[in-house]
Amino acid sequence: MTVLALDTSSRAASCAVWKDGAVLAEFYCNAGLTHSQTIMPMTQAMLQSAKITLREIDRFAVSSGPGSFTGLRIGLSAVKAMALALDKPCAGVSALHCLAANVRFFSGVIAPVMDARRGQVYTALFEGGADNLQRLCDDDAISVRELKARLSELPGAKLLAGDGAQLCKSEMEDLDGIETAPPHLLHQRASCIAEIAADMDEAQLVCAGDLVPSYLRLPQAERELQNKL
Amino acid sequence: MTVLALDTSSRAASCAVWKDGAVLAEFYCNAGLTHSQTIMPMTQAMLQSAKITLREIDRFAVSSGPGSFTGLRIGLSAVKAMALALDKPCAGVSALHCLAANVRFFSGVIAPVMDARRGQVYTALFEGGADNLQRLCDDDAISVRELKARLSELPGAKLLAGDGAQLCKSEMEDLDGIETAPPHLLHQRASCIAEIAADMDEAQLVCAGDLVPSYLRLPQAERELQNKL
Repeated sequence: MTVLALDTSSRAASCAVWKDGAVLAEFYCNAGLTHSQTIMPMTQAMLQSAKITLREIDRFAVSSGPGSFTGLRIGLSAVKAMALALDKPCAGVSALHCLAANVRFFSGVIAPVMDARRGQVYTALFEGGADNLQRLCDDDAISVRELKARLSELPGAKLLAGDGAQLCKSEMEDLDGIETAPPHLLHQRASCIAEIAADMDEAQLVCAGDLVPSYLRLPQAERELQNKL
Repeated sequence: MTVLALDTSSRAASCAVWKDGAVLAEFYCNAGLTHSQTIMPMTQAMLQSAKITLREIDRFAVSSGPGSFTGLRIGLSAVKAMALALDKPCAGVSALHCLAANVRFFSGVIAPVMDARRGQVYTALFEGGADNLQRLCDDDAISVRELKARLSELPGAKLLAGDGAQLCKSEMEDLDGIETAPPHLLHQRASCIAEIAADMDEAQLVCAGDLVPSYLRLPQAERELQNKL
């Protein structure tokens, strides 16, 4: 089973190939929001180093959200195009699930947090465990205050990961036992997207045309339109 | 502080740039022992994506061992060449320290293990801790049996990481509370080499000419010569 995964859901961009239970290659870059220019050259350089061609890919995976709307559209468009051209199935993976999987052997509650602007974070809660990461709730867009209230009700150690981690940590200094992920595991990594996609049942996969982003809230243009109506 | 790090100490090869407390970019590939052909094109592609030039690098870092003798020579040669040309300091980082740093927020004893052939592993022991990874002993080449004896004397959970993890795990099934690192953290990553090098005092750095590998045991040719004498 060979999976190619892309992540462009936040400021960092990455691509990875997962093959037969291991990370074959990964290219990660967090140097600014130019994913539309960088993600395909990165993918090409990675495939070349890994001595693998697109025709050898069994399924294509992508962070389907939540995250930067433009970022999600870039990643989904690229994955849809490759999957359509090669007639292969696609897997949409939650960016928050990816963040939690990155740090899954933390003993305690994992709260992936992505800065959603307007005082909110995209978040979900997971119970850490080396072989059994457990989701405690669905992905959601909530205020930092609400997340703090939810976390304060849970016992034990807590770990924040994602580009909202510092923001949340500074608002939660009085919460006991809260940490942030170390720098190399702070952001989404396409290798975890690929691993999650490799473990999916075929029934969870979709064709390129049916792959849709999960924005969790309406795009700005649609919000403004609704306000006018 | 900007650090460029290379790791070619095992079957996987990687390069990374660390800048101001974060991973700016990382390129990892585990597709066969062709590091002499791949590591510089990988580095070039990474620098290009990260929009950074070699002239902006403040220090150069490399896995200085233990590990594959040929692999170490490739990584050290590349780093020495760049540092010499640009007159910048070098940092040699233990590949075992890097493996432990990768999984440092594991609660318990971390045993990085690299397959050293001839029934031995390169190993060291660390106490995990998000902000305070503690080394318990020096890097060493010992038998799997000896490592098992050392680990059985230590209480609590244990984590194996590195290309010797599966080998050791299969010999230690009867040891309670022993796990292997998840796939994305199983092997050395240049991002952790770069992070360790960024934290080093200037007194720990060396000039290109003084950077030496740490083989931990004599190369095969020298062993054979000694046997003949």
